[in-house]
Amino acid sequence: MLGRIEARRRHTVTEPAAAKPRTIRWYWEDFPVGNTREFGAMPVTREAILAFASQFDPQPFHMDDAAAEASLFGKLSASGWHTCAMSMRMMCDEYLLESSSLGSPGIDSLRWTQPVLVGDVLSVRMTVVEARPMNSRPKVGLILSKWEVLNQGRDTVLTMQGWGMFGRREPAAG
Amino acid sequence: MLGRIEARRRHTVTEPAAAKPRTIRWYWEDFPVGNTREFGAMPVTREAILAFASQFDPQPFHMDDAAAEASLFGKLSASGWHTCAMSMRMMCDEYLLESSSLGSPGIDSLRWTQPVLVGDVLSVRMTVVEARPMNSRPKVGLILSKWEVLNQGRDTVLTMQGWGMFGRREPAAG
Repeated sequence: MLGRIEARRRHTVTEPAAAKPRTIRWYWEDFPVGNTREFGAMPVTREAILAFASQFDPQPFHMDDAAAEASLFGKLSASGWHTCAMSMRMMCDEYLLESSSLGSPGIDSLRWTQPVLVGDVLSVRMTVVEARPMNSRPKVGLILSKWEVLNQGRDTVLTMQGWGMFGRREPAAG
Repeated sequence: MLGRIEARRRHTVTEPAAAKPRTIRWYWEDFPVGNTREFGAMPVTREAILAFASQFDPQPFHMDDAAAEASLFGKLSASGWHTCAMSMRMMCDEYLLESSSLGSPGIDSLRWTQPVLVGDVLSVRMTVVEARPMNSRPKVGLILSKWEVLNQGRDTVLTMQGWGMFGRREPAAG
């Protein structure tokens, strides 16, 4: 069963990129400073928390109810890296997969402000903080974004500010 | 098959914590400023890159060889969040699971400095940058750590600096 899933995943992964070129809707120019969008509705299940924690962050408060209750979190909570990964998936689905995204050099600050719990539903509010051409690459621009990740009660569970590289619709002259 | 794996995982997760209390070897006092350790030998497989990317970061350069070759990375590369997660696992295995770790408020800076490729073997060099008591909690201390993640060629692929909260062996007086 696992083997078949792996095989199907590999198939899905390698086929469409060759067969069906992506449509790029958003280039660097389409992320003006001040632009805000809110998106996503990612349910957080116990199974997903345990699966991620088992693989990458098996600290007791991410793995066991009793240990979590005795911890600062008070309840079983998702690894902070899992929250980052779930947020990334929401960004991909909302805009990155239809953009000229070229990756990210890094994150300037990241704060896990509230525990992410079983049953939470996460969303993302993104704001463009800064946009500038990349001097060394005339076809590329940089975007500094602020992301606030919210739960269903509108508590902020994660804030990040970081850079993304995007292809330009119109490369710089010269 | 998946169901059985899930059941076994849940079993593994919930049983030992109750049956076998953890031994804590490292408290806040055991991370003095300047302390350095190097650890880990995490192999990066194609399957792991595709599995993480499929779930959390399905951008073409993390999913498809041809798209990756046409990208800034030049080859299929791991999601940056996957590199963070693999690094976290190495930290857990080296010291966090045997420590009084209480979680992390956040990361001050994070840089993905080189792509992580199929066949890489990652390790971590950790240095304690700052240590101070937590004013609001006399039983807790804060540690500011710098982590450099290296590949088998000693290239730095990720740097992070961030805070961890640890229980103190001897709580502050008063």
